[in-house]
Amino acid sequence: MDELHSLYYLLDLAGTFAFAISGATAARKRNLDLFGICAIAFTVACGGGIIRDLCIGAIPPAGLTNWQYLVVSVIATALTVGFYPVVQQLNRPVLFFDSVGLALFAVTGAQKALSFGHNGEVALLLGITTAVGGGVIRDVLLTRVPVILEKEIYASAALAGAAIVVLGHNQKWISSDWVAIIALIVCFSLRILALRFRWNLPTPTNKKPKAKK
Amino acid sequence: MDELHSLYYLLDLAGTFAFAISGATAARKRNLDLFGICAIAFTVACGGGIIRDLCIGAIPPAGLTNWQYLVVSVIATALTVGFYPVVQQLNRPVLFFDSVGLALFAVTGAQKALSFGHNGEVALLLGITTAVGGGVIRDVLLTRVPVILEKEIYASAALAGAAIVVLGHNQKWISSDWVAIIALIVCFSLRILALRFRWNLPTPTNKKPKAKK
Amino acid sequence: MDELHSLYYLLDLAGTFAFAISGATAARKRNLDLFGICAIAFTVACGGGIIRDLCIGAIPPAGLTNWQYLVVSVIATALTVGFYPVVQQLNRPVLFFDSVGLALFAVTGAQKALSFGHNGEVALLLGITTAVGGGVIRDVLLTRVPVILEKEIYASAALAGAAIVVLGHNQKWISSDWVAIIALIVCFSLRILALRFRWNLPTPTNKKPKAKK
Repeated sequence: MDELHSLYYLLDLAGTFAFAISGATAARKRNLDLFGICAIAFTVACGGGIIRDLCIGAIPPAGLTNWQYLVVSVIATALTVGFYPVVQQLNRPVLFFDSVGLALFAVTGAQKALSFGHNGEVALLLGITTAVGGGVIRDVLLTRVPVILEKEIYASAALAGAAIVVLGHNQKWISSDWVAIIALIVCFSLRILALRFRWNLPTPTNKKPKAKK
Repeated sequence: MDELHSLYYLLDLAGTFAFAISGATAARKRNLDLFGICAIAFTVACGGGIIRDLCIGAIPPAGLTNWQYLVVSVIATALTVGFYPVVQQLNRPVLFFDSVGLALFAVTGAQKALSFGHNGEVALLLGITTAVGGGVIRDVLLTRVPVILEKEIYASAALAGAAIVVLGHNQKWISSDWVAIIALIVCFSLRILALRFRWNLPTPTNKKPKAKK
Repeated sequence: MDELHSLYYLLDLAGTFAFAISGATAARKRNLDLFGICAIAFTVACGGGIIRDLCIGAIPPAGLTNWQYLVVSVIATALTVGFYPVVQQLNRPVLFFDSVGLALFAVTGAQKALSFGHNGEVALLLGITTAVGGGVIRDVLLTRVPVILEKEIYASAALAGAAIVVLGHNQKWISSDWVAIIALIVCFSLRILALRFRWNLPTPTNKKPKAKK
């Protein structure tokens, strides 16, 4: 039980860090000021989890009570601001960190909903919400249509990860640690492969598709 | 009591379906992918209700716990995607479905707030929220100023419907079934007539109005 | 205790009024209709507080239960709509009212979180949220990047105000009334001075900054 809790805690913290980096990078590209960058970093990192906690009745939300999350966000912001040339040089770092956070948050989000005694559908939907909620809020704050709704296997990967957690929870013959590890690998792989091979979900196009916006 | 519950349940499900169709249509027009269309459909259908449930303390929100809502959203998405030419041919189908959902959600939203023991103002505001919340989130996600804030009798119709429910709740001499039916008819008629005769709320114009945006 | 409660109550009401005026002015400039103006006014006035109340478990949120808040919002809307030429003539009235509301909401928001038994971090983050949440929602609804994230000492002033409340709460040798007054003055002064002398937080610029949007 302690091990599971430690694993859960570490996964949560690592996911927070990954998302904060991704949020700070996006905010910096839009020339936000220092507070704006930090706010977007924190929002991306904790936004999905805060919505999840409100929905499962975990009051106050974990993102607001633990100094760790805020500190991790500030550190991620400082790294992104202070070492931006380095971060910029990395090959698609935003996409990589996003994929790590995606898998971590989908799994821990679904686990937390189940641990609060809610049913499989709640865990499934809130696993996805934890994973993509922060990114959706980021895109809304930067006034663009959330990229996850337009193309790419992204939320679908989170759905796969959360679904494995829910299925594993119902099948008692496998430990939840292993379930979490399998779910993480599947979700992360799905996302990275989708990026690598440019997999997309089908877009039902009109006769003559034109770029609206 | 059972009858009321069945009525409430059916109204809720029908409203979910109507809003999901409306959301899926709007998302498809913006060329979102399959997941995006389904997500917008579900958000429009359940978004207002989820905000309402968070505000009245109905944890977890009904939109997340009942498989029916998700299934209804998926079916609505499938219909909109699979039979889009048909849906497109219908005369202003989005507006019609929107009006049905508007009336249904304003009434059931206000009723649920009252049934949780909250006062008339909470029921009034959350009736409106249930009715227009999903549409506002849809417009925010598609990065446009929510159309209900710019023109048309829309939220005002929801306000009328919710107000009738609240007034009827205070007047004990009429059954809540009849109150609901009257509120539904008033709200729906108000919206449809507003569409038909292009009724608008006054816009306080500046001396020389110019299209900003 | 009664005095503190009265002070808290009056501060809350005054902040609501100030923010509602600011929201109604912004909405009127975008040519929204009467309902839209009132909705934005109410959202700016109560939006931050509602998010705060959801996060601390104050169900239903105070913004929804007290007729006063709604009435104050409607009055502010009526004033802004009916006497717009006058409001327009005032020197930067939106900015002034915004500063008043900012200080009031940061302080009362942090106080309320503490009074519900939450820790300093929750009070700090929710003080900021109460102060800037409504404005962020306003900007999102009007589809623009929230101005507080791009430039100006705004949320930073709220942070200062909320931090003083949290620090004062831990230091028992000073009455919370005085703490509140000091926090209000610091936050308001910081904001007004920032406006007057065009103080900004540093923006980490790229080599060749260009206006994106």
